Amino acid sequence: MSTPFETLTTLLAEVADLRHAAELLEWDERVYMPAGGAEVHGEMQATLRRLAHEKFTSDAVGQALDDLKRTQGSGNPDSRESRIVAVTARDYDKATKVPPRYVAEHALAVSAAQHAWGEARAASDFAAFLPHLQRVVELKREYVSFFPPAAHPYDTLLDDYEPGMTTADVQSIFGVLRKRQVALIGALAQRPQVDDSFLRVSYAERDLWDFAVEVITAFGFDWTHGRQDKSAHPFATSFGSEDVRITTRWVEDQPLGLLFGTMHEAGHALYEQGVDRIHHRTQLEGGASLGVHESQSRLWENLVGRSLPFWEHFYPMLQARCRSQLAGVTVEQFYKAINKVERSLIRVEADEATYNLHVMLRLELEIALIEGSLAVKDLPDAWNGRVEEYLGIRPPSDKLGVLQDIHWSAGLFGYFATYALGNLIAAQLWEKFEALEPSRDGQIGRGDFSRLRAWLKSELHQHGRMYQPKELVARITGGPIDPEPYLRYLEGKYTAVYA
Amino acid sequence: MSTPFETLTTLLAEVADLRHAAELLEWDERVYMPAGGAEVHGEMQATLRRLAHEKFTSDAVGQALDDLKRTQGSGNPDSRESRIVAVTARDYDKATKVPPRYVAEHALAVSAAQHAWGEARAASDFAAFLPHLQRVVELKREYVSFFPPAAHPYDTLLDDYEPGMTTADVQSIFGVLRKRQVALIGALAQRPQVDDSFLRVSYAERDLWDFAVEVITAFGFDWTHGRQDKSAHPFATSFGSEDVRITTRWVEDQPLGLLFGTMHEAGHALYEQGVDRIHHRTQLEGGASLGVHESQSRLWENLVGRSLPFWEHFYPMLQARCRSQLAGVTVEQFYKAINKVERSLIRVEADEATYNLHVMLRLELEIALIEGSLAVKDLPDAWNGRVEEYLGIRPPSDKLGVLQDIHWSAGLFGYFATYALGNLIAAQLWEKFEALEPSRDGQIGRGDFSRLRAWLKSELHQHGRMYQPKELVARITGGPIDPEPYLRYLEGKYTAVYA
Repeated sequence: MSTPFETLTTLLAEVADLRHAAELLEWDERVYMPAGGAEVHGEMQATLRRLAHEKFTSDAVGQALDDLKRTQGSGNPDSRESRIVAVTARDYDKATKVPPRYVAEHALAVSAAQHAWGEARAASDFAAFLPHLQRVVELKREYVSFFPPAAHPYDTLLDDYEPGMTTADVQSIFGVLRKRQVALIGALAQRPQVDDSFLRVSYAERDLWDFAVEVITAFGFDWTHGRQDKSAHPFATSFGSEDVRITTRWVEDQPLGLLFGTMHEAGHALYEQGVDRIHHRTQLEGGASLGVHESQSRLWENLVGRSLPFWEHFYPMLQARCRSQLAGVTVEQFYKAINKVERSLIRVEADEATYNLHVMLRLELEIALIEGSLAVKDLPDAWNGRVEEYLGIRPPSDKLGVLQDIHWSAGLFGYFATYALGNLIAAQLWEKFEALEPSRDGQIGRGDFSRLRAWLKSELHQHGRMYQPKELVARITGGPIDPEPYLRYLEGKYTAVYA
Repeated sequence: MSTPFETLTTLLAEVADLRHAAELLEWDERVYMPAGGAEVHGEMQATLRRLAHEKFTSDAVGQALDDLKRTQGSGNPDSRESRIVAVTARDYDKATKVPPRYVAEHALAVSAAQHAWGEARAASDFAAFLPHLQRVVELKREYVSFFPPAAHPYDTLLDDYEPGMTTADVQSIFGVLRKRQVALIGALAQRPQVDDSFLRVSYAERDLWDFAVEVITAFGFDWTHGRQDKSAHPFATSFGSEDVRITTRWVEDQPLGLLFGTMHEAGHALYEQGVDRIHHRTQLEGGASLGVHESQSRLWENLVGRSLPFWEHFYPMLQARCRSQLAGVTVEQFYKAINKVERSLIRVEADEATYNLHVMLRLELEIALIEGSLAVKDLPDAWNGRVEEYLGIRPPSDKLGVLQDIHWSAGLFGYFATYALGNLIAAQLWEKFEALEPSRDGQIGRGDFSRLRAWLKSELHQHGRMYQPKELVARITGGPIDPEPYLRYLEGKYTAVYA
């Protein structure tokens, strides 16, 4: 006879295998699939995702959870077993509250909306996208209705990506952030611009690729349990912590994009590779949330990868690979160039100092759409007004404005906040690590990431989904998710770069 | 309400998706998986294969088949629907006759046997492998016992790889073949050896790779529905006819191996790419049998790819890529070198003229083991005796003899015959095509494969598993599987090469 817990973990292992396989198929689709294979891959993917969903939401799982609830009442709520049961119960509850009829309608609606968005963006024609977006917003509000009322209807959507975070939490955090970040950008715009002309010449892909590999190997990316390839859009994926894959891309006129993309995805990968093997094939595998995951990619890409100590160590190696482009460029000039701040219209091309403002305006508009204080038809005006308020520039077209992101057409409401939260958490971790290790910058300046990596693994990576984001940040820093460290970091860094 | 046929095809589509996904995982394992991912891949693979098996052998499939048998009695037995039902019923019957207990025991036994074989081969120590092979043979005989008695116990094993072929069939075919092929090899050994020294110098992998791509593109390999990579052992795989993948390998001291391996796997791939889309996700997708599949790889590799007309067209292109190696070598010299015949001990390194003899001796020994006329302990002596009889040389060790192949340790009894049958069927098709198209060699000599490819597709590829091997050969050639065309081909070709 197996115990209810053994029954549960056996069922979850099968679900995990199906999900891993679906992820691997998706990796293949984006990296190596011949173009004509799309339909066959769609069939396989649909079957695997459907079986994983059916098996996860099965009565057998529900029964095992009920049995465990009855027997487990008095156990330690922080034990691995209790956490597995709690997280699984939470995921099960979410997955079973949404009727299959809704899942099918949502899938159809976002499929049509994504297609319409692609055409509307190309034509910069918001009106053509409007009815689709209205339908998606309506469906999102219906989704909220499946769950018990929360303090704010947007809470339900946010919770899917940042478990335990509320609308009030993000509004309070971003209220502080917005004001000071807008002021910083305004001040920097008054300073003479830095010179990055040497980043706008022709580089060889091979040189950047080999250098990027050298860098993430030093970070600690484990090539025995991972690999890197190229894809149209960089991403990281994993099938358990023992096979973690990243991609990057080569864009001729943004040569450094290959390098920073690699460092970003390696940050995600180090998290996945660091999850304790004991969580494998349970609901505790993977990262705590999208925001916490993003804190790891941003930490390695920006706090490490765009820092002066990092380049004091690595710049001579890059220079040796790219002699013709970087001869005569000092490390200080290079450092300033990769930290150039520009007020621009497109989020994915935004620099570190302006990025959060792009995210915040989206979050505010999303909240307004969901609570009904903004009509979908009024979205372009609201968008353009906020861009002007935060960045001091106004989009000349919807293509360069409200139509630029795929997220809303894909039904991803509640997602944008995670990008900004990632930046904040990264800065909190970075400050905390320096408090524990005052030689932090000296370590980075020697290219020694071993203590940073070991600390992140022991404090964060190994736990997988054991702790929710707020709980995790509190365990590590002793306080709440807080914009102050990030603002200190930004203000300190950019005041120096633009001194 | 769906009809029983719709019910069946819906069930089969799901099984096909799971099998396709498992094949893609296997491709990934052999081509791109990081070494540390083996365990995770094993878990995914096991779950997908188990679910595919459970779903294929489910009562739902049995019920749909029963319903169809009742209603379909008077239909046209050659219709696609009737064939799907018949092939599925046959596969279902086989899959359900074998008890799960046996499947598990067999899996354990071959896992242990493969491990023992690896060590025994390295040490050339048959005695260490003996108890494992005895167990495997015992299990194979038990497998036979699950099915109704056939004319010969080996029939049941053979039928798994060559549906409809019997032991009497292959004994009669190979009886003719053996005698004349042994005589041919003996005669060739008396002739002066051809010079292939220019194939034993250093070539650049890139040159051979690019040339191989040029060749299979001319064959008609569809890159929109396929790709090529490298792996330790070349193979072809597919997930339906719209995504068909091949691999090749680079071995420094066998440079042409990359090219002939590519042509061989491209032959398998052209078959898979040519299967009519209508068979997709049914039991009719894929090839008719391993032997028929091998007929396609051998046809493109040998009958086309080692022919003089082929090289009259392609040799100047290879020469242009490999100037330093091939300058001064005439097309006739090159043609003779790639058709050099040598009496050697290792099957996988054997040339076209001796290959079948390696296969036949294995087949004869397998039959003797299964019928019990040969004890496993007497296998090395029997092996060595036959090698000497057929090839005129004697293995100095079991490593170079009875321990060279992985097949028996993997439980693959009934498999070897398919290699030789492939050669025979290829020659029958080749002769038939020339009878229909007397300009065959002229077409090949112009690098024009369009008529050959179209004929193979319409006569063979498109049908998938609609017809069994004997039926298929009869439909195309009007007669049985016959060794005569192959012998005419071998005798004609090698008498000229060694004139």
